[in-house]
Amino acid sequence: MNTGHKPGAKRVVVLGSTGSIGRNVLRVIDSFAARFTVAGLAANRNVELLAEQVRRYRPRAASLGEAERVADFKGLVNGTDVEVFGGQNGLVELATMDGVDIVVSAVVGAVGLEPVLRAAERGARIAIANKEPLVMAGKIVMETASKSGAEIVPIDSEHSAVFQCLNGAPTSVVRRIILTASGGPFYGKSREQLREVTPAQAVAHPTWDMGPKVSVDSATLMNKGLEIIEAMWLFDIDAGRIDVLIHPQSAVHSLVEFVDGSIIAQIGATDMKLPIQYALTYPERFPTPFATAKLADMGELSFARPEPGMFPCLDYACEAARKGGTTPAALNAANEVAVAAFLDGELSFLGIPEVIGEVLDMHENVPDPSLDEILRADREARAKAMAAVDRAGKRHT
Amino acid sequence: MNTGHKPGAKRVVVLGSTGSIGRNVLRVIDSFAARFTVAGLAANRNVELLAEQVRRYRPRAASLGEAERVADFKGLVNGTDVEVFGGQNGLVELATMDGVDIVVSAVVGAVGLEPVLRAAERGARIAIANKEPLVMAGKIVMETASKSGAEIVPIDSEHSAVFQCLNGAPTSVVRRIILTASGGPFYGKSREQLREVTPAQAVAHPTWDMGPKVSVDSATLMNKGLEIIEAMWLFDIDAGRIDVLIHPQSAVHSLVEFVDGSIIAQIGATDMKLPIQYALTYPERFPTPFATAKLADMGELSFARPEPGMFPCLDYACEAARKGGTTPAALNAANEVAVAAFLDGELSFLGIPEVIGEVLDMHENVPDPSLDEILRADREARAKAMAAVDRAGKRHT
Repeated sequence: MNTGHKPGAKRVVVLGSTGSIGRNVLRVIDSFAARFTVAGLAANRNVELLAEQVRRYRPRAASLGEAERVADFKGLVNGTDVEVFGGQNGLVELATMDGVDIVVSAVVGAVGLEPVLRAAERGARIAIANKEPLVMAGKIVMETASKSGAEIVPIDSEHSAVFQCLNGAPTSVVRRIILTASGGPFYGKSREQLREVTPAQAVAHPTWDMGPKVSVDSATLMNKGLEIIEAMWLFDIDAGRIDVLIHPQSAVHSLVEFVDGSIIAQIGATDMKLPIQYALTYPERFPTPFATAKLADMGELSFARPEPGMFPCLDYACEAARKGGTTPAALNAANEVAVAAFLDGELSFLGIPEVIGEVLDMHENVPDPSLDEILRADREARAKAMAAVDRAGKRHT
Repeated sequence: MNTGHKPGAKRVVVLGSTGSIGRNVLRVIDSFAARFTVAGLAANRNVELLAEQVRRYRPRAASLGEAERVADFKGLVNGTDVEVFGGQNGLVELATMDGVDIVVSAVVGAVGLEPVLRAAERGARIAIANKEPLVMAGKIVMETASKSGAEIVPIDSEHSAVFQCLNGAPTSVVRRIILTASGGPFYGKSREQLREVTPAQAVAHPTWDMGPKVSVDSATLMNKGLEIIEAMWLFDIDAGRIDVLIHPQSAVHSLVEFVDGSIIAQIGATDMKLPIQYALTYPERFPTPFATAKLADMGELSFARPEPGMFPCLDYACEAARKGGTTPAALNAANEVAVAAFLDGELSFLGIPEVIGEVLDMHENVPDPSLDEILRADREARAKAMAAVDRAGKRHT
């Protein structure tokens, strides 16, 4: 139980507190109750769980994304002294609250960009789990953080691994970053087999327990493609020096190969609470109460290069990483629309890369874009992706 | 070619320059000729190769262990201005030369202890490849280095790996150190099969190219046992927090598990030039000219706990690590005698742990010993081991 502020504890705002990452952040905070206090909680639409969290953690502020349900939410937290915000602006209000030490960004989608940017301006540590801010506007986010001195510490297991392997080493001594990918639930399946994949199958990830959007991204390897773009910015390294290896056991979370041939790898249990704990406690490490990896029980670990053409979404992401400009934002927007359509049964699994390919073909890249140009590219790509989903639906009916 | 001193280059003394490690040290120096100068070379008895090295690298001083062949050696280096020393004292002369930046200690056996101690007193970096100084007198060596500010940087691939994984982290955040072992050429063989093992078979290591003594130690896993004792002192951690895992592929050179469950591993090619390069360039890393590891070409990596009783030499070493005092010195001395007898055809492979067991049974441990007490334990254990070898020979004839 974690009510009220403890002297010396760090104040944490959790954006996306009812999602898979957000709930795990709160479990980590439960385990380190003397070190962390919950200062703010934001969710999109899970009114009941957000209200329950507010009653339990007693944050100063809370925000609900679906503005029309804010009144319901206020009713549920009646009697607490929480300040309630609503809509996308609520995320920004929480991210910029006074006296906050750590903003955990764990919302899904492009909606996470603005609060991250505003938090970066204020110099708070940003423990970042959502890829979109860096994928869409990595240059702007990193420059903003650099100016204010904000630390951006990754939560994603792959980037947490790279962050730990680098351990402050400059990019000049890095030969390459190697991101591992489980390959998802369909690794090794033929195109013919992939044609019939259902949302339920795609969401059942073999090694990680994740939300539906990220699980589908993991099955298409778009997740890995977005991670390449994210890693470019987080670690100031060009995409050509970021490799992907298929590692079905998900034991090695990622690796850094240094110029002298030494490879440093980070290994851990497939439990997001561990990288979350590190992102909160960095640069310190504290004994964890969570189950950890046992190397001798892991069986054989293998690493394989993904075959070219096997993962078209990964190929599109690599192309977007090389192009830069507004292309990663367009890629991300097209993917969000396509995955949502797949999860709603409106698009086949193989339709996801088709939609993305169509959108990228039409996209006019803007190099070194402003935030407005990025947001416009995002909107336009979404509209084009929706039209492409419609066309794909008509083709198949 | 590496003749004379270059401005700004670090002056390196190589003790054991004609052995497997020493020759690789010189190849690394060849590749970084602007950064390192050879200031001294010492060998035990390979007069011809030492003379060739002296003519090539033009060190200020050289030393030959076998004092009776010093005259021959002087004849071979006639015309150079090298200062020649002989006998064990020659190692000390080289280790304590003025203006030396790095002393590489790569001699075989207990003879390496005194020069390392003397170098530690002077504050030079010691790149250490031989285990005996730390196994026999780890506490004294580390205390001496701590007083003078001497850095002790390991060359051994396992300890280099741990050193890199720790990257300066304090022992308080380490849950355990995991040393990997290939298992040697006889891993999985029955006791019956081991009875007939010949020196030639024992020296053929599956993954590393090493000298005969270290190869036999690797086959008995005494090598790993000595590494546990060495790691205790190098990393200031008790033996109970050092584990061994059998990893037949020798890709992961060792690992550190932190208190928060994160495991950092170091991976590299099985080429001693890579950890040698790191020990010389640390804390910097430079692009290596040597072949490096390709993770995707490594096949499956596996890790297994050694079964209790499978490696009696490892068990004896763990016992000595726990006991401390003079017991590790006695263990090391008994092992040196037993392995030499095995290589000379005077003792069977299974006789090695028998001899060590007999010596340890007779050893009277001295806790917190002085250097004299350690050296006496070494001498007495050697005498007892020789007698035990004789008895074993008589039992089998």
